[in-house]
Amino acid sequence: MSVVVDRIGLLVTNDPALGEGVLGIIRDASVVFERGKVVFVGPSGQVADERIDAAGRSVIPGFVDSHTHLVFAGDRSDEFAARMAGHPYLAGGIQTSVAATRAASTPELAGLTNSRREEARRAGITTVEIKSGYGLDAVNEKRCLQVAEHFSNDTTFLGAHIVPAEFAGRTDDYVHEVCGAMLLAAAPHARWIDAFCEVGAFDADQCRAVLTAGRAAGLGCRLHANQLGHGPGVQLAVEMGCASADHCTYLSDDDIAALAASTTVATFLPATDFSTRQPYPDARRAIDAGVSVALATNCNPGSSYTTSMSFCIALAVRDMRMTADEALMAATLGGAQALQRDDVGRLAPGKSANLVVLDAPSYTHLVYRPGVPLIHQVIEAGVTVVAPSI
Amino acid sequence: MSVVVDRIGLLVTNDPALGEGVLGIIRDASVVFERGKVVFVGPSGQVADERIDAAGRSVIPGFVDSHTHLVFAGDRSDEFAARMAGHPYLAGGIQTSVAATRAASTPELAGLTNSRREEARRAGITTVEIKSGYGLDAVNEKRCLQVAEHFSNDTTFLGAHIVPAEFAGRTDDYVHEVCGAMLLAAAPHARWIDAFCEVGAFDADQCRAVLTAGRAAGLGCRLHANQLGHGPGVQLAVEMGCASADHCTYLSDDDIAALAASTTVATFLPATDFSTRQPYPDARRAIDAGVSVALATNCNPGSSYTTSMSFCIALAVRDMRMTADEALMAATLGGAQALQRDDVGRLAPGKSANLVVLDAPSYTHLVYRPGVPLIHQVIEAGVTVVAPSI
Repeated sequence: MSVVVDRIGLLVTNDPALGEGVLGIIRDASVVFERGKVVFVGPSGQVADERIDAAGRSVIPGFVDSHTHLVFAGDRSDEFAARMAGHPYLAGGIQTSVAATRAASTPELAGLTNSRREEARRAGITTVEIKSGYGLDAVNEKRCLQVAEHFSNDTTFLGAHIVPAEFAGRTDDYVHEVCGAMLLAAAPHARWIDAFCEVGAFDADQCRAVLTAGRAAGLGCRLHANQLGHGPGVQLAVEMGCASADHCTYLSDDDIAALAASTTVATFLPATDFSTRQPYPDARRAIDAGVSVALATNCNPGSSYTTSMSFCIALAVRDMRMTADEALMAATLGGAQALQRDDVGRLAPGKSANLVVLDAPSYTHLVYRPGVPLIHQVIEAGVTVVAPSI
Repeated sequence: MSVVVDRIGLLVTNDPALGEGVLGIIRDASVVFERGKVVFVGPSGQVADERIDAAGRSVIPGFVDSHTHLVFAGDRSDEFAARMAGHPYLAGGIQTSVAATRAASTPELAGLTNSRREEARRAGITTVEIKSGYGLDAVNEKRCLQVAEHFSNDTTFLGAHIVPAEFAGRTDDYVHEVCGAMLLAAAPHARWIDAFCEVGAFDADQCRAVLTAGRAAGLGCRLHANQLGHGPGVQLAVEMGCASADHCTYLSDDDIAALAASTTVATFLPATDFSTRQPYPDARRAIDAGVSVALATNCNPGSSYTTSMSFCIALAVRDMRMTADEALMAATLGGAQALQRDDVGRLAPGKSANLVVLDAPSYTHLVYRPGVPLIHQVIEAGVTVVAPSI
């Protein structure tokens, strides 16, 4: 059965061959899809078995959220409130979530993850990467990834999130465990391996060991890099051919040059910088130097408990000096590139039919109307997963 | 018929006599109301004719948005995009909205205003002030206020918003018109008078003339002050006994001392500072000096096209160094004080039954979860105006 979304006032395809500019914009457009794939993009007035009337609204590709930690139990609003009262963000708060996650049953974790995945859908996110990292032993990392698999094809083993309490003072022993028993348990349920390269978490050599082991087990590499200060993370990400270096809040000239010369995407997580009162990354400088960039929510209970990609886009424009066009592309096609996915992030024939209908004449309203819920309808692989409320 | 909202996990009453701390918090609470007024606040388990089960969610008083410009036609997203690309915000863009508003029919204006009022309700705003200021002649200012009256008891005549094109170079002549024919037409439909005291709009003497004329016509005074730079606005607001000085982005020590010694509320509009890339006001300094503060959206098409009080609260905490408690109070009771309203902003016997049920265990989640729509249900004067969607 074919479906047409008709009378789209402004359509973003992200394919310059299909429309104006880098966003490939078509005005007064329609999109036809069948069996979950786009089969036609072009002028309004197409006919199909079923018709959805966009009534002049704008349509964008579904957001691709390439960095989340959706599988966790417990709440850290108290830690958050303390931070807002002046206490700095330290990686150690993660232990709180580890304890709660280990204590939770698998059905409980699945229910919590499902709620968050549904909330993300309502925010227009049609593709989501999900990391482990609150289990931190073989049994619990595997359990978290098995939950994550139900919601994402892009699951990431993040055993090297932080050193768990029982390995305190024995980081190398823990890294050995991550590369051994934990990786063995996790790998069948993961596409990616990731590590947190930061003072207080893991140093460059430890992260290199983890990524190398993961790659040998068939996983792709990504890295948490340069979140809380300058460090070796970005250079390591490039050296290891990571798909993405995430955070990049602190970028030296050398970091930018290395990223620009590589295939590694710089994934910015501005809601994290918001929630931890960090400075915002200088996206302008990175983009102008030719770095490929993505925006993601980093949804997690400690440093960024949001599913709002719209909020990330607004921050990227206001505080990271990205244009609205760049921010929209970073949250869609940029996310797809950070996940090395060719099937999402564009609305073109053959691509997955992931469409977000906005209650606005243009995607610029995602920045012009900050905080206002503008996600009208969400279609994922051709199926309406968020129905219009009005 | 009486209604009980029962099993409230955490209730904010804003009445220290009713619960813990300045927010008067009661855990495991219920609120009973009848004929639009609260009749009981206390422990869960109360009985009434109708029962709403909050199921452990938190409940706060409805937001009181004491500064909006909801009556306008047209869109200024192009101007917004230009500003984000580096052009500074100037008061002159208001002329675009004036032209569109004058050209719009009254039913059209009423429809647009209704959509925005409904959007604000979905954002938890149960009391809203609405200004004129896009008509700028007797006929159109009256027309805008007549529309506004349908949606608010707190309508504000803002003829002195900017000098319209037909009075270019003749500001004093225009002020004469505002104080004469325009005020005569507007006053029957307004509770308040306001003026924009700013370089490029009106100076202190002109604003003083407008407020004095308004007061003589029976209107209460408020003032747009110190938005784009230091200036005489705040001092004038205090001198004239204004209920509120709005914006206060730039506050000198003298301004703070004057506010602290007065009954004038400092109303911060952080979404405006966000959307115009202005610095944020130093709320911490003002509060510590004893100034009464409010938070409002300033919803308007040029400098702050948002109805999201949650977004304003998150900015106030992150960027203005207010605590979550202070920000919540400023967006509820603070707004009521800025409007000199005693019937709203608190949940206590005799007050209007304006309740917002949050899809969160605490109001701190308004900051902890930025950009996430947490408004679950909205009750205004005892009537459910926003029903739970899930």
